[in-house]
Amino acid sequence: MAGSRYAYVKSFEIADPLLPSTFFVVRIDGKGFHGFSKLHDFDKPNDVRALNLMNEAARRVVGGRELNGECVVAFGESDEYSFVFKRTCRLHGRRASKIVTLVVSVFTAAYTALWPQFFPNSPLALDHLPVFDGRVVQYTNELEIQDYLRWRQVDTHINNMYNTVFWALVLQGGRTEQQAEQELRGTISSQKQEILFSQFGINYNTVDAMFRKGSIVIWEEVPPTETKEPGHKVEPVTPEPASTPPQPAPPADSPAPITTMRQRKKPPKPKRRLVIVHEDLIADAWWAEGRGKGLLDG
Amino acid sequence: MAGSRYAYVKSFEIADPLLPSTFFVVRIDGKGFHGFSKLHDFDKPNDVRALNLMNEAARRVVGGRELNGECVVAFGESDEYSFVFKRTCRLHGRRASKIVTLVVSVFTAAYTALWPQFFPNSPLALDHLPVFDGRVVQYTNELEIQDYLRWRQVDTHINNMYNTVFWALVLQGGRTEQQAEQELRGTISSQKQEILFSQFGINYNTVDAMFRKGSIVIWEEVPPTETKEPGHKVEPVTPEPASTPPQPAPPADSPAPITTMRQRKKPPKPKRRLVIVHEDLIADAWWAEGRGKGLLDG
Amino acid sequence: MAGSRYAYVKSFEIADPLLPSTFFVVRIDGKGFHGFSKLHDFDKPNDVRALNLMNEAARRVVGGRELNGECVVAFGESDEYSFVFKRTCRLHGRRASKIVTLVVSVFTAAYTALWPQFFPNSPLALDHLPVFDGRVVQYTNELEIQDYLRWRQVDTHINNMYNTVFWALVLQGGRTEQQAEQELRGTISSQKQEILFSQFGINYNTVDAMFRKGSIVIWEEVPPTETKEPGHKVEPVTPEPASTPPQPAPPADSPAPITTMRQRKKPPKPKRRLVIVHEDLIADAWWAEGRGKGLLDG
Amino acid sequence: MAGSRYAYVKSFEIADPLLPSTFFVVRIDGKGFHGFSKLHDFDKPNDVRALNLMNEAARRVVGGRELNGECVVAFGESDEYSFVFKRTCRLHGRRASKIVTLVVSVFTAAYTALWPQFFPNSPLALDHLPVFDGRVVQYTNELEIQDYLRWRQVDTHINNMYNTVFWALVLQGGRTEQQAEQELRGTISSQKQEILFSQFGINYNTVDAMFRKGSIVIWEEVPPTETKEPGHKVEPVTPEPASTPPQPAPPADSPAPITTMRQRKKPPKPKRRLVIVHEDLIADAWWAEGRGKGLLDG
Repeated sequence: MAGSRYAYVKSFEIADPLLPSTFFVVRIDGKGFHGFSKLHDFDKPNDVRALNLMNEAARRVVGGRELNGECVVAFGESDEYSFVFKRTCRLHGRRASKIVTLVVSVFTAAYTALWPQFFPNSPLALDHLPVFDGRVVQYTNELEIQDYLRWRQVDTHINNMYNTVFWALVLQGGRTEQQAEQELRGTISSQKQEILFSQFGINYNTVDAMFRKGSIVIWEEVPPTETKEPGHKVEPVTPEPASTPPQPAPPADSPAPITTMRQRKKPPKPKRRLVIVHEDLIADAWWAEGRGKGLLDG
Repeated sequence: MAGSRYAYVKSFEIADPLLPSTFFVVRIDGKGFHGFSKLHDFDKPNDVRALNLMNEAARRVVGGRELNGECVVAFGESDEYSFVFKRTCRLHGRRASKIVTLVVSVFTAAYTALWPQFFPNSPLALDHLPVFDGRVVQYTNELEIQDYLRWRQVDTHINNMYNTVFWALVLQGGRTEQQAEQELRGTISSQKQEILFSQFGINYNTVDAMFRKGSIVIWEEVPPTETKEPGHKVEPVTPEPASTPPQPAPPADSPAPITTMRQRKKPPKPKRRLVIVHEDLIADAWWAEGRGKGLLDG
Repeated sequence: MAGSRYAYVKSFEIADPLLPSTFFVVRIDGKGFHGFSKLHDFDKPNDVRALNLMNEAARRVVGGRELNGECVVAFGESDEYSFVFKRTCRLHGRRASKIVTLVVSVFTAAYTALWPQFFPNSPLALDHLPVFDGRVVQYTNELEIQDYLRWRQVDTHINNMYNTVFWALVLQGGRTEQQAEQELRGTISSQKQEILFSQFGINYNTVDAMFRKGSIVIWEEVPPTETKEPGHKVEPVTPEPASTPPQPAPPADSPAPITTMRQRKKPPKPKRRLVIVHEDLIADAWWAEGRGKGLLDG
Repeated sequence: MAGSRYAYVKSFEIADPLLPSTFFVVRIDGKGFHGFSKLHDFDKPNDVRALNLMNEAARRVVGGRELNGECVVAFGESDEYSFVFKRTCRLHGRRASKIVTLVVSVFTAAYTALWPQFFPNSPLALDHLPVFDGRVVQYTNELEIQDYLRWRQVDTHINNMYNTVFWALVLQGGRTEQQAEQELRGTISSQKQEILFSQFGINYNTVDAMFRKGSIVIWEEVPPTETKEPGHKVEPVTPEPASTPPQPAPPADSPAPITTMRQRKKPPKPKRRLVIVHEDLIADAWWAEGRGKGLLDG
């Protein structure tokens, strides 16, 4: 074929598989969002519309066909989102660049396409489009993945506490940004809460949970009664991922599974849907009894 | 700090730098574009609007602030685009995942945001957004990068020749897709051209160059006269990238360069702008005398 | 410094760390040992001297100062050896090439230096020295590492069964090598055992366990009575590795541990020594109650 | 097969190919050679026997069958050695760990086996064997590889200059090591030469070139007259490596080369042998007209 004399350049593509049985996270971050948020006049310290848009874009990633339902939970704060995959995930041969670019692309497309719904009066500028970079990080066991999510939620907490007091001082307290920064230097959490309460009458614990705890995108089963109700619309319900084998990679020459000719009818799989919640996942309770229970199994 | 007990998870982030002085290409590919093109009823064998949209999105990538003007040329065909960077590129510390995700994200955002301009009557569906994956490939010298681009253009040629005849047979010749496929099996280039000409009166060489050769996004200097003309608008003109040192990485302990106190005035750098052309870059002439001359130097 | 203008070449060294908390194996293989074993007239199907030399070289690796006592078990068969490290191992910053080259080098040096003790009448030829290559493989949990070792022991079993019958047919049964190969084609384990027993009176289960099960180099505690006996020499007893933290990587900004001024005296750590055994590590019992118990903990 | 249920662990082996057309260097370093050199009472500042042993071991690596004659030059100083491979090298599929471990193993075996010839009165201790680690570094063009070798030779020069004066001060000048260190602090090259000459009558330029410039192991052609002389023994002469294609990887579907049935007789390839020289490779002359000419071509 005419092109073959140049085809040698394809040999420079080097495979980049993840290890066969690691858990992994794809974390995306807004690029230049400081300027972007100014351009669109985001509320300080948190813009509800912008956070809801992030959440909705994340829901499109987790529930979208590109990930085949294999992302089990996502966590977001500010302009970043983390997507968590189980050790049994076989998506795209576990090729790192394939997976990370797909997540970034679906997120970016959704964020851009959904923008007008959340910011109807502030259209995107073609030379200042929302852009995200991404990376993939591997972990070896459930505790590490739990701690990864705890790390992000603690980060949410620390940043939000600071920003809440900072912007109260500036917006309500009449300080300059420099004064506010200096006033907060070296303060610990309880002191910041005290400033908030004594000067501005704000009880930090009543601040919107989405601001304090970030957002969790997670699957939940749809109760059978709900799915049967005529006319009831559940959206989006994605199909269960194909069941994955317990072994990280099946032996090449394993015997074919023995099956009877008459397959027994399986009970129908429960439908599931994505929900967005703002819960404390730092405490063990969330993992032992809450939505995190069994999340990383299998 | 409260979060420090979980911060160990950050140590799982492993650096993925490109080699310090390789040329490299980021190639992106549409994901599931067969279905996407059906959904939006793309013309066969080529949809001019779709190709122009790809080109415009690519121009936003090459000229956008995210790449700092460091992408020197891009080549596109169908639903793929290749972005070429020189060996001296120091963008984002040459971190592979950072660079590849940024390119994919800017491209996706531009494609999504520009869509209504190119397909005003076929709005995007939120559950079928345009998605691209990407990879980065390193090369060691100019010839390999030239051959990379030749490889893509030969691919464009082969695919377009086939598709042009195939769809002529189907759309004008009344064959089914199966019949057309069978009729073309084993034919060589000259035979396909003969079918095109004898049955449909089409001289392949007069087919739109964009279809036959793909699209090249490349910088060109703006003539001084043009930039000085009052009221003349040149868009987009991005700043020259900061000049890069000839050495791939400056020695850590090199002495500071000696400079005189009175810096001489440099002549102003020529302005440049991006153009989209459909030229033959397989022949040496393009590299020796055409737009490719000096493209990969320095 | 005079050399600085060339020091940029150092920037081409790219880090290759293992993930922070994987288990890993360094496996080395003899290079060209078919010819090497002919040159030194190794016994067929197994050469006791050669296997003992492999074991002794492996013991020097596991117990040597280079690995700091961090290799917890090694398994050998034929001309290969696998060295297993726990997830908490921090040796040499977990740099892959550093670790794998050190293991290969220590093994090669020991094999070469010990050779005359095991083959006093067959001196090494300078142009046919024993050479080993190596690789490092990461695993995410204990079961995978256990299965890795099981995989090697099953391999030992299969190879030795075949070789034992093959060489009995050739050396005692008067077949040519081709005849023996043909005679064994398609036979299963029980048939091979039957040939061995009926034709050569050999009960496979009485074959030397080192041949059937391979060799395990493993630490065991030295009973206190034994170490206290005057004049008793225990060799080699390497020091315990420095205790490693339970977390795969300590948070950078963790508070300093609180210590009292008067440190309590710790009870002396039990001494340990390396033993070489030929046990079945495929069965769960070895891991639940045998030497494998607790081996991979912590 | 019985072992198949564990064979999945093999899937954890991840490929580590070098890029298809980089030049690369394998550099090995003595591990703990400070102690090793004390144990065997190496002369200060340089031990001729130890350097000759390093050189001879390196010659065994470069000329040995394991590298198939594909290492084109090696450079050594002190307890380190660098082995240089051309961009066309296809050894072992360019697998990084395979290549680096082979080099380390051959070097270690040769160093250990040759030891008694160089240190007949100081036998190796089994618990202090000579050990080397290794790494592989890739470069994209000839200049970088030249600069790599210049970097090592400048390093040789700087270290040797310092050590020569330091040990003159200590061994001949009666200083303590601390005094010598202090006396040399901050001195530049010309000052060190002045101390050497004025205090000890040593002209630095007359110091053994092996100490000042390091050692180069390189191939040279054997003149035909020499090879024809009866009884003349040239050792070792390794065969030329199989000629490699100019393209880094041949296209998969390239047509078979056309050959005539009667192959013409090729003129016999010139024989070549390894020599060890101590030349200046920093100056361009060595590369333009000296032994470096054409060294990295093809």
